[in-house]
Amino acid sequence: MIDSGDSSRDLLVGVDVGGTKVAVLVVDAPRHIRSRVAVPPDLTSPQRTLTGIAAAIRQALEMGSASLHEVAAIGLGIPGHVDPQTGVVHLAVNLNWREMSVRAWLSEELGVPCFLEKDVRAAALGARLCNGSSSVQNMAYVSVGTGIGAGVILQGRLYHGTHGMAGEIGHMIVEPNGPRCQCGAQGCLEALAAGPAIARLAQQAVASGRETRLRDYSPLTAESVYQAAEAGDAAAQAVADIVGYYLGRALQILVMTYDVEEVLLGGGVSRAGQTFLAPTLRELERQRQQSALAREMLRLEMFKLLPPNCDAGTWGAIAIAEQSLRGSVVHRFDSW
Amino acid sequence: MIDSGDSSRDLLVGVDVGGTKVAVLVVDAPRHIRSRVAVPPDLTSPQRTLTGIAAAIRQALEMGSASLHEVAAIGLGIPGHVDPQTGVVHLAVNLNWREMSVRAWLSEELGVPCFLEKDVRAAALGARLCNGSSSVQNMAYVSVGTGIGAGVILQGRLYHGTHGMAGEIGHMIVEPNGPRCQCGAQGCLEALAAGPAIARLAQQAVASGRETRLRDYSPLTAESVYQAAEAGDAAAQAVADIVGYYLGRALQILVMTYDVEEVLLGGGVSRAGQTFLAPTLRELERQRQQSALAREMLRLEMFKLLPPNCDAGTWGAIAIAEQSLRGSVVHRFDSW
Repeated sequence: MIDSGDSSRDLLVGVDVGGTKVAVLVVDAPRHIRSRVAVPPDLTSPQRTLTGIAAAIRQALEMGSASLHEVAAIGLGIPGHVDPQTGVVHLAVNLNWREMSVRAWLSEELGVPCFLEKDVRAAALGARLCNGSSSVQNMAYVSVGTGIGAGVILQGRLYHGTHGMAGEIGHMIVEPNGPRCQCGAQGCLEALAAGPAIARLAQQAVASGRETRLRDYSPLTAESVYQAAEAGDAAAQAVADIVGYYLGRALQILVMTYDVEEVLLGGGVSRAGQTFLAPTLRELERQRQQSALAREMLRLEMFKLLPPNCDAGTWGAIAIAEQSLRGSVVHRFDSW
Repeated sequence: MIDSGDSSRDLLVGVDVGGTKVAVLVVDAPRHIRSRVAVPPDLTSPQRTLTGIAAAIRQALEMGSASLHEVAAIGLGIPGHVDPQTGVVHLAVNLNWREMSVRAWLSEELGVPCFLEKDVRAAALGARLCNGSSSVQNMAYVSVGTGIGAGVILQGRLYHGTHGMAGEIGHMIVEPNGPRCQCGAQGCLEALAAGPAIARLAQQAVASGRETRLRDYSPLTAESVYQAAEAGDAAAQAVADIVGYYLGRALQILVMTYDVEEVLLGGGVSRAGQTFLAPTLRELERQRQQSALAREMLRLEMFKLLPPNCDAGTWGAIAIAEQSLRGSVVHRFDSW
């Protein structure tokens, strides 16, 4: 049982808070899904966003015919700079949150202990769960979406870094004369290989007058690029190859610094599947051809897509809830 | 006391094994230096190299009027791929060692428990000690010499990675069309900013026919470059600036991935001091000018040279000896 003082609290709730979706997952102790809910966030004010999250949690519990009294803990993945110790969100641009005491407010409001983590870090735990690699000690989860970030598990545990900024690989400079990044620097990985950069490359291909089915898409997105590439469009494939080249370079650096066992790739852009992954693997294979060290360190089978049905965000939030409980309380989630 | 079963064993020995020097340090429990010895390694055969190390240890003890019976443990920093768990050196190119059971042989030969670590990783512990930053949880020690490597302390402990290869930053590719590295890849950091690369850049400057005092040096080394730069030679300064540019880029990536609190720079090339460090700091400052994230993450005061009198290698080996003892035995080195 989760809490030896209250054996009825055998549910966990995981919340993946995003700029366009708040997803809630309720599970019981044997890790069975009780219910799921996804609602758009209420972005009309910082406080209403928070109130909306509480409402989404209540809604998910209702759908599972459960109540807050049965919940042992709630984990939340937040897209921003979070301090898991204090439960304060320092900055979450998409939610317009600055120095919000999210944990304190939600715990009080719901009467259940709440625990926060940066979204990509929570998702790393979820990805490990989906991938069945819970024995892997050193692992990186790389999310390629609107931005690029990594959640890193080292020696079996999430690694945060000194200021909670570890894994900011979207801002490693891979092309010093490259395009300007939102952060202000030139040639950050994110400015070359995240969703908006891919869309920009596609627009440039269209603008160049080249014959391509990319001109049929409106809006022209990263998704369009991989669809067109899959259908054999050469201009779209060229864009996918550029993205793969930069991701391959970033993954080389990631592995040379962290020496991880596995790199799982997720995030919106990665949903294009093999069309997304193959150009990255080609760049890594090119590096392997050149160097014995690269052949030793960069085994292609260590780079994997997240399974398409893996909801890494909410499962990761569940893992955060569970890990935060662990240690202080006797409970039945030990195997997680 | 170190070993409750044998209170007379209150010395530690640290050995920094290099391709040109074997340095031995003997200290007692309050961390007072008893003796130091440095001898050239005997490279006439792998076994004789090992026998020579044992002889150097005995010599250092004799100089300190001490005996092996007083030694609690011996730590060794080895320039190669080492498994600290098994005490086997998989590969140490400069010593011509392959799959050598160094720990087993030395422990048996000397009758004292011996512990191995990769040299740059041991030196990271030594650097932390010299820098008085023992409370720093996340730190990188970057050695710039014949090669470039990092020893990384995360959450207070050395981080090895899955295959003991973490911190191989000398082989992060920072210039994809750059010069060929010894590893076979193009544009590794090491091929652009380590000692031999600096000497090559200096030779190119001389060969270009440019007016420079670099042509007066023979041999023309990295040290010559920084001497000439310090004396105001423009061509030498240009080489130092190139090196600083690439090191600055690598340190940016290191900090963005690991989010360390401090980066200590050591190794032969770094002995040039401020002439070496300043161009790296200029590149980092350039990045800071561009980006708020860089200003937040890359504080210039976090990048420090190892103090010139710091013998990070042997003190790190002492720390390895001490850490390896710790946990199993009651001893008086707790504060290390």
